[in-house]
Amino acid sequence: MIRLEVTWAAANLILSVNGKRFRWACFSGSITEAFIVSTEETFDVIVVGAGCLGVSTAYYLQKNSPDKKILLIDRTLAAGQSNTAMSAAAVRNMFASSTNQLLTDTSIKYFEYVQNELGHNLFFEKTGYLWLLSEEQFNHESVKLWMERMKKSGINFKIYTKDELKKMLPGLNANFAGDEEAELMHLQEVSYGLFGSDCGVLDPTRLVEHYFEEFKKISHIKPRFGLEVKKLLLEADPKLDLPGEPFVWQNKKVNGIITDKGTLRADVVVLAIGAWTNQLLDPIGIDGMTKMKKRQLFVIHAEDKKELHDLLDVKGFNELGCVPFTILPSAGVYFRPQLQERGFWIGCGDTIGRAYKYIQTDEDMVPESAYYENSMYPVLSKYFPAFQGARPVNSWAGGYCYSPDRIPFVYLEYGVLVVNGASGSGIMKADALGRIADALYRGEAEAELYGGKKIPAKTLSIKDRNVEIESVII
Amino acid sequence: MIRLEVTWAAANLILSVNGKRFRWACFSGSITEAFIVSTEETFDVIVVGAGCLGVSTAYYLQKNSPDKKILLIDRTLAAGQSNTAMSAAAVRNMFASSTNQLLTDTSIKYFEYVQNELGHNLFFEKTGYLWLLSEEQFNHESVKLWMERMKKSGINFKIYTKDELKKMLPGLNANFAGDEEAELMHLQEVSYGLFGSDCGVLDPTRLVEHYFEEFKKISHIKPRFGLEVKKLLLEADPKLDLPGEPFVWQNKKVNGIITDKGTLRADVVVLAIGAWTNQLLDPIGIDGMTKMKKRQLFVIHAEDKKELHDLLDVKGFNELGCVPFTILPSAGVYFRPQLQERGFWIGCGDTIGRAYKYIQTDEDMVPESAYYENSMYPVLSKYFPAFQGARPVNSWAGGYCYSPDRIPFVYLEYGVLVVNGASGSGIMKADALGRIADALYRGEAEAELYGGKKIPAKTLSIKDRNVEIESVII
Repeated sequence: MIRLEVTWAAANLILSVNGKRFRWACFSGSITEAFIVSTEETFDVIVVGAGCLGVSTAYYLQKNSPDKKILLIDRTLAAGQSNTAMSAAAVRNMFASSTNQLLTDTSIKYFEYVQNELGHNLFFEKTGYLWLLSEEQFNHESVKLWMERMKKSGINFKIYTKDELKKMLPGLNANFAGDEEAELMHLQEVSYGLFGSDCGVLDPTRLVEHYFEEFKKISHIKPRFGLEVKKLLLEADPKLDLPGEPFVWQNKKVNGIITDKGTLRADVVVLAIGAWTNQLLDPIGIDGMTKMKKRQLFVIHAEDKKELHDLLDVKGFNELGCVPFTILPSAGVYFRPQLQERGFWIGCGDTIGRAYKYIQTDEDMVPESAYYENSMYPVLSKYFPAFQGARPVNSWAGGYCYSPDRIPFVYLEYGVLVVNGASGSGIMKADALGRIADALYRGEAEAELYGGKKIPAKTLSIKDRNVEIESVII
Repeated sequence: MIRLEVTWAAANLILSVNGKRFRWACFSGSITEAFIVSTEETFDVIVVGAGCLGVSTAYYLQKNSPDKKILLIDRTLAAGQSNTAMSAAAVRNMFASSTNQLLTDTSIKYFEYVQNELGHNLFFEKTGYLWLLSEEQFNHESVKLWMERMKKSGINFKIYTKDELKKMLPGLNANFAGDEEAELMHLQEVSYGLFGSDCGVLDPTRLVEHYFEEFKKISHIKPRFGLEVKKLLLEADPKLDLPGEPFVWQNKKVNGIITDKGTLRADVVVLAIGAWTNQLLDPIGIDGMTKMKKRQLFVIHAEDKKELHDLLDVKGFNELGCVPFTILPSAGVYFRPQLQERGFWIGCGDTIGRAYKYIQTDEDMVPESAYYENSMYPVLSKYFPAFQGARPVNSWAGGYCYSPDRIPFVYLEYGVLVVNGASGSGIMKADALGRIADALYRGEAEAELYGGKKIPAKTLSIKDRNVEIESVII
């Protein structure tokens, strides 16, 4: 039963609901905002951000510290509704750095375990990944190093020749000789295919749901949504209660968050908010070292086009009998099969000319149809003429949170545990990153990843970073 | 002779002066702004930013490419009027990374040459640098490495014991035993002094003047001030003149700048704008990887305080018979002697709690008196009681442009030559960085620094970076 009392104090209407006091701020006579006043709730950990990295971290934290009060919050109204939902959600273990190989390979194996052993369908489909490469690209030093490191790490991959590709992908245009347009567009002719059979696609919403539901089963605190963090609560440690604290000569620590609905306290605040991290981290004087880039996806349905159905249904790459996730040699254009919809998602990892941003804004969530028409479509339809005339039936956009070396960050400093910088491949690393974050929280020197492999817990920190630079970013 | 013609077009008053057309924009009936229309001027190089790094770069570019048309611009009304003028302008070769050692040692030797051989007084005074260190700090691994690397590079330094320091600095409080305030403030007791005799202070305005005047002597183009760059002009290369260019499949290059007074074209645009770089670089898709922190200086005059005059005039450290630039063991507080004014500049390199910013704003140019009173003064007056009761007679603030490894950036990509990230020590590296930028422009593999030492021109780039992380930042 809700017991409600109403009193007026100054310009504010105070409501008491079952003894908890709410204040309704009144502006120009209209009620605009409700927030909790008076009490400062206290938790052991607050996890900010319920995207793929936040829910994975929350789950492993709670699993390994069952008695801790862990609150998961997000400013959207449900888990996984921000950049996670906007992802192409393709997963691969084919990275050039052994760090990313380890993070993804173990995470993908965990996803298989969830789907096959736990019976939670992630719509994980092993379509494989296919890089179409020119002669020049294939012989590039960085590609040699990439293949070398994959061999060393036991990552499965296969090389296809041009002739093999032409047979397996009859719709592929692998001959640009005399094509003035292709020359003008600097398109590189396909000479090789680099294929990884353990890669695939999944449904990111299902993955988030898995961690979120498992977390809720073992958590003592109900997650809260629609809660926006305004500031990290940086305080003197110990507090002297002097006006103007903290001063430079005091030790300092983050003791919680200031939200639009009041202050919440915690020993540790986890920040798993990707392209929004700078907004909270920079003001307290920690350089998160990430930047955001907008990424867009455009959906093409095969509909009544036989050529597109044929492309979707090419055989020989995988047991599904479908086209792999395919990366074109030029301009960063790629496509992902979407079998349930009988279609493709088209994306592009553009470099120079696509702005870096400090903090993701609303306009980064808006796809630009001209971008598909003028930039992606001409490339796509040149390599695969089946796409000629294809118009998107849907599109969306989101942000990548880039780290300088394209390897994620996980570090605990001044009471803040940061998990970000996955550089567009957070979903495929989500399991490993959650486990590493948890190991750091518990003060463990190593984190044990799925399957038993171990990684030093501070390897992904800023201060004790020990990683190879990642060169294979899509 | 000026030939002037006036016509009205719409709301704009068009003036022709000797055939060049100017437009006076009229808002609400008043003339507010004059800018050049119609013609796009073309240069070989435009150097944006006339701070210490910009003028040094402009000078070396012009010196080694005498026929090139090089335009130097700044948005303020004179050279060196922004962060350069706000600097403590202390110069040291005592860095922990061999890269910073080389950059500063050769630059400082060039400054000595300018002052002693060329006769241009920079007010360079070899006060020396004195780090006051606790037992724990002195024995820290990073300090051992620092000293080791200085020995290896031939950087002069000397260690003072506590007893020596107490004799040389009678005003130093080196005994906090039983001092509850000092304990509360986590102040570390002084046990050692690390002193560098080749370090000192100078007048940054004089240094900028040197490069600027030398540049003007050999340049064909008059520098322009009060000119604000709105955007870098990123264009397709080659241009196809399609609406919406550049597209992802086109090569791209920066071909100039768009300013508040029109577009200026150049083969290469030099960005030497420190804490404002992100504003121009990020929108074209280059992550400059720097962030800004506000830094403040407060001026204390000795006036009628004998203790402060005595501190200013301590003997034994240098030929000037003055106190060195001195860094306290705790809280990042330091002071610099200012002999002409008979006073001190007090600064602080605060870490956690002082915001990082994406782009420097006007509020970063405003010193906070409470910062001196509550944060710096308690520390300063505890180590040197002579400062008790001292109130600033002046203060100012500016920004440091931090790189992740605290080593500067110099790189040439897509037509943009970036010189920044000096992390608070740009003045003392200005000569070396200008020479490296020039070597990159001329496509040289190595840059020759003052005195003949060489450094690979791409060592300070993002892509081919080869540096040790700098740990000694003040």
